[in-house]
Amino acid sequence: MTTTTNAPEVHFGAMRKKIDLTLAEILPAPEADPGRLYEAMRYSVLAGGKRIRPVLAISSYRATGGKDDSIYRHACALELLHTYSLIHDDLPCMDDDDFRRGQPTLHRKFSEYIAVLAGDALHALAFEILAASGNTEVIREVSQAIGTEGMIGGQVRDVEAEGHDVELDAVEAIHRRKTAALIRASVKIGAMLAGAGKDVVSRLEQFGERLGLAFQIIDDVLDVEGDFAHLGKETGADSRLAKATYPKVIGVEKSRQEALRLVDEAKTILADFAQRDIFYELADYVVARKN
Amino acid sequence: MTTTTNAPEVHFGAMRKKIDLTLAEILPAPEADPGRLYEAMRYSVLAGGKRIRPVLAISSYRATGGKDDSIYRHACALELLHTYSLIHDDLPCMDDDDFRRGQPTLHRKFSEYIAVLAGDALHALAFEILAASGNTEVIREVSQAIGTEGMIGGQVRDVEAEGHDVELDAVEAIHRRKTAALIRASVKIGAMLAGAGKDVVSRLEQFGERLGLAFQIIDDVLDVEGDFAHLGKETGADSRLAKATYPKVIGVEKSRQEALRLVDEAKTILADFAQRDIFYELADYVVARKN
Repeated sequence: MTTTTNAPEVHFGAMRKKIDLTLAEILPAPEADPGRLYEAMRYSVLAGGKRIRPVLAISSYRATGGKDDSIYRHACALELLHTYSLIHDDLPCMDDDDFRRGQPTLHRKFSEYIAVLAGDALHALAFEILAASGNTEVIREVSQAIGTEGMIGGQVRDVEAEGHDVELDAVEAIHRRKTAALIRASVKIGAMLAGAGKDVVSRLEQFGERLGLAFQIIDDVLDVEGDFAHLGKETGADSRLAKATYPKVIGVEKSRQEALRLVDEAKTILADFAQRDIFYELADYVVARKN
Repeated sequence: MTTTTNAPEVHFGAMRKKIDLTLAEILPAPEADPGRLYEAMRYSVLAGGKRIRPVLAISSYRATGGKDDSIYRHACALELLHTYSLIHDDLPCMDDDDFRRGQPTLHRKFSEYIAVLAGDALHALAFEILAASGNTEVIREVSQAIGTEGMIGGQVRDVEAEGHDVELDAVEAIHRRKTAALIRASVKIGAMLAGAGKDVVSRLEQFGERLGLAFQIIDDVLDVEGDFAHLGKETGADSRLAKATYPKVIGVEKSRQEALRLVDEAKTILADFAQRDIFYELADYVVARKN
């Protein structure tokens, strides 16, 4: 299977624009009280970003027959959750990062307490928005993906693994929880909200799991090979913190190969799926991306 | 109206015991991975506490005809949310507290990053549990109560107000969001889960709002007049941080009077409510409590 590097920039541009507009609408206006909190939330969420989780949820929703535009709001809840996790991970007591999406991290720009509380506020807001879907199965899926068995559990293991020699299995386990769980859930809830059948939901979930893992491997690779101009954050952070990453354990080249292998595996799962093209494009984008 | 100081200790003892058992069941076992995270979550949640929010939700549920024991799990989600907020408020970048419920605060006992993430994990777990209620209106209610218009917004205003001269109106506005919002929601969702009619839900909500405000005023009073043995935390913290409190603005005696006035007002709202006794007991407890 070949990869097409520019496809997503062309195809998903309109979707991303609408996602950004929806996010701006969802977030409380900075004129309200306490304005500093709302400015902080907007600063982090509206700084840009790939919007990969909402793009996946919306694509999955449309491909499985969903027609309603309310999907944009629900999908944006995933971006709020992702952003909250970045804000907390960047804190001095964790990764202590100074830049994110080309700007100072939230605790650098505002203050540490505002960063903790803005993250908390985005977390709560995401569930307020998801509640409007009327679908408690979706809420359960998302809360599990970001909980102890998913994102948070992975983040704890990630910090614990710093400075230790780890096997590839352990790195994979961390990535599955820290990153793949929410990406998997993004693909899955799109189909759930569209009312797709169990088999379709399950296959999209398997696709999302592999895509999520490939996504994090490429993240690790970009931390070694990328540059500030593309990434908007300092590279080499993983190495500085002695993080458990694929490149650290098997090198950059084999890491790329593993990401490609996972993406091929993901595609195979959807090989006889009529609406497979959009997912293939997204899969190619994940390994070809520069940021 | 008279107050009976010992009633809740007697009457709510069995309920509290069952709440504690349910919390122990809900929280992930410390043998699972990452164990340190699960130990931290259990350490904070199972350290005791008044369990006032679940007690209110369960009482409200029963008084409005709810029969199912699943209310215990849903009510415990409120305690998880309350505990997460305490963990984050105690952090060095906010109140920098060393003791809570008679033990070292979580960041002191474990570490700061574990405290941030354990709080996040409790936040997510609460919504996972509420999702099992199948009631998205309840989820919306709770997410709003802990969000920017409720708890988080109040906490930001609380920290911002430190060291400033504030009017009573401003203190009341902070307390309404920081504390009363979740207490009001606790009373309200009990009735919602029992399928109570709009009028009953609305009156319980108004009762809960006043009770929540009285609760926080007494909290402020106890910070001045209480002692470590009863409270399990250092007193005088508000004064040390120059917090915006009722005693600071109107003194201890007038603060107590205001709490009593609010509790009387709360009772009046339920005066012709057939099941009012349990709520009257809870209201009396709020002003009579020593911790």
